[in-house]
Amino acid sequence: MWEQAELTPEALLDCHLTPVTFPFFQDIQVMLVVGLGLLLTFLPRYGFSAFTHNFLLLNFSLQWALVLQGLLHHFHHGQIHLDLHKLLISEFAAVTVLISVGAILGRASPCQLLVMATCEIPIYLASEWVIVTCLGVLDVGGTITIHVFSCYFGLGVSKALFRTTQQPLHPKETPTPSSDLMSLVGTLILWVFWPSFVAVLCQPGDAQHRAILNTLLAMSAGAITTVVASSLLERDGKLSPGHLQNGSLASGVAIGVVADMAMPPVAALALGSLSAVACVLGFRFLSPLLRRKLTLHDQCGIHNLHGLPGILGAAASVVAVLVASKDTSGPQPSQLSPAGGNASEVVEGQRGVAGQALCQAAGLAVAVGASLLAGLLTGAALRLPCLARPPERLCFDDSQYFKIQDEAESPEPDNSTEEGALALKEQV
Amino acid sequence: MWEQAELTPEALLDCHLTPVTFPFFQDIQVMLVVGLGLLLTFLPRYGFSAFTHNFLLLNFSLQWALVLQGLLHHFHHGQIHLDLHKLLISEFAAVTVLISVGAILGRASPCQLLVMATCEIPIYLASEWVIVTCLGVLDVGGTITIHVFSCYFGLGVSKALFRTTQQPLHPKETPTPSSDLMSLVGTLILWVFWPSFVAVLCQPGDAQHRAILNTLLAMSAGAITTVVASSLLERDGKLSPGHLQNGSLASGVAIGVVADMAMPPVAALALGSLSAVACVLGFRFLSPLLRRKLTLHDQCGIHNLHGLPGILGAAASVVAVLVASKDTSGPQPSQLSPAGGNASEVVEGQRGVAGQALCQAAGLAVAVGASLLAGLLTGAALRLPCLARPPERLCFDDSQYFKIQDEAESPEPDNSTEEGALALKEQV
Amino acid sequence: MWEQAELTPEALLDCHLTPVTFPFFQDIQVMLVVGLGLLLTFLPRYGFSAFTHNFLLLNFSLQWALVLQGLLHHFHHGQIHLDLHKLLISEFAAVTVLISVGAILGRASPCQLLVMATCEIPIYLASEWVIVTCLGVLDVGGTITIHVFSCYFGLGVSKALFRTTQQPLHPKETPTPSSDLMSLVGTLILWVFWPSFVAVLCQPGDAQHRAILNTLLAMSAGAITTVVASSLLERDGKLSPGHLQNGSLASGVAIGVVADMAMPPVAALALGSLSAVACVLGFRFLSPLLRRKLTLHDQCGIHNLHGLPGILGAAASVVAVLVASKDTSGPQPSQLSPAGGNASEVVEGQRGVAGQALCQAAGLAVAVGASLLAGLLTGAALRLPCLARPPERLCFDDSQYFKIQDEAESPEPDNSTEEGALALKEQV
Repeated sequence: MWEQAELTPEALLDCHLTPVTFPFFQDIQVMLVVGLGLLLTFLPRYGFSAFTHNFLLLNFSLQWALVLQGLLHHFHHGQIHLDLHKLLISEFAAVTVLISVGAILGRASPCQLLVMATCEIPIYLASEWVIVTCLGVLDVGGTITIHVFSCYFGLGVSKALFRTTQQPLHPKETPTPSSDLMSLVGTLILWVFWPSFVAVLCQPGDAQHRAILNTLLAMSAGAITTVVASSLLERDGKLSPGHLQNGSLASGVAIGVVADMAMPPVAALALGSLSAVACVLGFRFLSPLLRRKLTLHDQCGIHNLHGLPGILGAAASVVAVLVASKDTSGPQPSQLSPAGGNASEVVEGQRGVAGQALCQAAGLAVAVGASLLAGLLTGAALRLPCLARPPERLCFDDSQYFKIQDEAESPEPDNSTEEGALALKEQV
Repeated sequence: MWEQAELTPEALLDCHLTPVTFPFFQDIQVMLVVGLGLLLTFLPRYGFSAFTHNFLLLNFSLQWALVLQGLLHHFHHGQIHLDLHKLLISEFAAVTVLISVGAILGRASPCQLLVMATCEIPIYLASEWVIVTCLGVLDVGGTITIHVFSCYFGLGVSKALFRTTQQPLHPKETPTPSSDLMSLVGTLILWVFWPSFVAVLCQPGDAQHRAILNTLLAMSAGAITTVVASSLLERDGKLSPGHLQNGSLASGVAIGVVADMAMPPVAALALGSLSAVACVLGFRFLSPLLRRKLTLHDQCGIHNLHGLPGILGAAASVVAVLVASKDTSGPQPSQLSPAGGNASEVVEGQRGVAGQALCQAAGLAVAVGASLLAGLLTGAALRLPCLARPPERLCFDDSQYFKIQDEAESPEPDNSTEEGALALKEQV
Repeated sequence: MWEQAELTPEALLDCHLTPVTFPFFQDIQVMLVVGLGLLLTFLPRYGFSAFTHNFLLLNFSLQWALVLQGLLHHFHHGQIHLDLHKLLISEFAAVTVLISVGAILGRASPCQLLVMATCEIPIYLASEWVIVTCLGVLDVGGTITIHVFSCYFGLGVSKALFRTTQQPLHPKETPTPSSDLMSLVGTLILWVFWPSFVAVLCQPGDAQHRAILNTLLAMSAGAITTVVASSLLERDGKLSPGHLQNGSLASGVAIGVVADMAMPPVAALALGSLSAVACVLGFRFLSPLLRRKLTLHDQCGIHNLHGLPGILGAAASVVAVLVASKDTSGPQPSQLSPAGGNASEVVEGQRGVAGQALCQAAGLAVAVGASLLAGLLTGAALRLPCLARPPERLCFDDSQYFKIQDEAESPEPDNSTEEGALALKEQV
């Protein structure tokens, strides 16, 4: 993914790296720390834990990826360079962990999460190397390498961890209006900064401009489609907050793989709408099906937000590669750049168009296969008794990990009677 | 407004547009999606709807404005170019919708809001073309074209929609401390990023630097003045959260029209303070008066936040044009630039000083007149029975549009008895 | 601190200041207005006041510092220039006030806070002039000049204001889960943007790149260390939200003074971890000790967040100066830059290495001494009867200053019976 950009450390420093890349980097930090953190607070009594674990895992995975990269580089060149670009790559590695964790949010202990991160980072780096460097897959926004990979890794872990036991609906699992609102704030922070995530590793100039515009268009279309699709699907035309929190982001996942390619705006809009529909349909029909038939537990619905739109995006990239090559010979329908852009040149030069299209499909297959296998193995490892999974009745509860009052949201210092009443109810 | 900047798509791409304009664009997205969204959550049981409708309307209006612009351009040049600059202009068009909606927040159905957006966007584009291109009004921050226009459009809609029926105080209309705090967070997000909104379309360099500094100074003065004015006006010297949420932003509205002109810092501070006083006085005295005498319903007080400060800013621009021209002949009192700046050159070149001052006043008159008229017509259209305005008792309630628990903020999963009690109370 | 950077207003305007410095400036505004404001909302019934007072003090101090700077400059050059760089320096002056206020949060009236700000700003400007211009202390991130100074100023004020009376634990002082979560959101906003705060006044290029990377590494290590240290210290391994809210930021305080120096990544990681440990240990052991032995009241624990890590950072800078000079003669272990960097050149050129190391220590001594003395005097002045400190039973209560319902978080419009019950309880 990043190898095609000629961003050597020296080049970066020469061309005044900091003002150019640093704002993008900050945007991504806000997304991951604040946006994703808030998105995960939809569990009303588990908000503090979800927020903190997300933050902890980000930092742990970032440093672990930096160390791994440093060691690899050390073997080859005998010296470790550290720059913002390396930090970015490590941050992307960390993203995969944060996504995968969504499948088992609230039912795993911090120790299990750290072990999961330790396993996932090297597998991600290897898979990314195969997909981008060996197969030459075009995937500027990490749709295949990050989103699809982390989704199926997380599902694999969940399947192996919970086996065939169906997880009953926990009483603390239901969001409250205030926790839903906080979660929606997180969604919209992610939504706003998503173009930075997709475009940060593009070549500055036309390609980056295109990536930003296509992402903006796709996400704007996705937002509207989500609202429409959700109202049509639910009884009484009432929207489901969960659909909104996820559907608006699905288009960002799907567009990533084709964002820097020259395409008519209507294609970006269509891809955005399609992925939002796929996400909402997934929540409505596929998730309950998977839960019943495969006893697959997916707490945050990562399969609907990252899996389905990721596959859709990969399919779109196959089409885009095939169409883009045809266009360069004929008249150019692109509304964004006179030349076919960087992506199609790469396609033309190295191998045939069909070859590149095949590679995109192969990349998807590698991502799904490797992640599922590795996820299942990691999930089996997480069953080790020393990793202390919390018992069911203590799941989704901040007071398990934090010195925090259990009765969330009650600011009265003298609510002892209420506490007693609640305690009584919970014993029943 | 934007025509005077020589930002052709080609020029933008050549001068590395993305790193220069993109951070401004992201700031504005944060303002509109997160900041304005949170500001509207002051209604304790309508926060989710206000936040979501704001987001939906932004996206719908943005795309609708893009389509309209594309069609117009298509007629003239036969080809549609899409770039960040066009997106920005569409975003500004969308802002007018988001402001206008504030007048009828909570009492209109989503369908009505969408129809309102559909009507407002073309009228805004036409009015902006008249004011900026035909009249040559200087208005870099959109004070006249955006704020004044959208305020009177919204009031017109409100008047025509609710006619002479006085809206009683709804029991769900009173903010709670926690909803007030969320709303204040939104205010401060808007406050922080306001300079980006004002300066994004300035010429990079001196003019942009000036616009940023003047906006910062005005908003800083406005924040302090709001607190002082609110304490002086209220009994016991207690501040009203509503004053704070709006007054701190009023100075940003007023300064927009003169932000890029060379002026002594004290002028920016004075304008900021004056507009904050105007906003607070408006909330304290004018709004109740309008409600009683004209039965004008203005839910968010947009007349105080956008109307009064906008008119004040337009008046200030008349003075600034007259003074600036005098200054260029004598010694320059400007603390910001040695030359008189872009604005006064324009004034000197095209027409006399008095002519430009007249044009500023004419621009204000056009904005007020056109928007009031169009608003009244749009409001009448919104009374169509097919658009289903919610009945009074279902206003200000998230559960009307979302699959959400009605008992906001109660995170206890087993509060069935409380629910029963509440239901009983509501039936009484 | 800023004199070593050759950022004259002319130079800034020439090199396209706005796109380069403005994003940093916006980041810092977000930190101070939104991040710090939210961090202070951990008091469940005082959130609105803490948030607003923070905002008000920032604006008041900013303008007061601008006026003072203007007057000083006026005496020397007869003309006042205003630019983003001067605003930045004033913003840094305002930061000291916002930090100091943390020691007496909730127990002081707004009038007292404004008087405190009025006193602190000129003392800070004088102390900063002595430390940076006279002593030539290297302190790019303001560790000594801002953090240490403001911490001991605040503690001095607190000591003189409350004298020997031990402040009992107020019933409204205990955070609730939702106020803790909001506060943590504030922490993470500060955490994300901290590199901008440290690097904004660095020379663009290598030094700034280094400052950003070192700060990122230190803060990442600090975040993990905080979680580990807090779990080890508390019974049952449960984390304390207070530790997390402060410990993750302590490393940012400590790294500031050495951030732009060339150092191996492991040094930044180590300093980050050490300061996080110091902060957590401070909360666990030192704060209770100071409260019992010295009857020192420190509401937000600023001594643990700003004092201890600041002293640690100053000590690290002595070591760094001594080590860096040795390195330039031998082979360079720096992983970040081939040359020794800006800092060590300064050291070499002007005075001996030992001299610079001594100056760093002297700077720390000046900051601690001057701020404690000035703080004690200011605190004594705040006891003037006209400044109306709120009585103990009205402390930590928004309804003292705002027209706000007392029963926070209860959104039911018809909770009159609950209110009555509460009122009864409070009378008891």
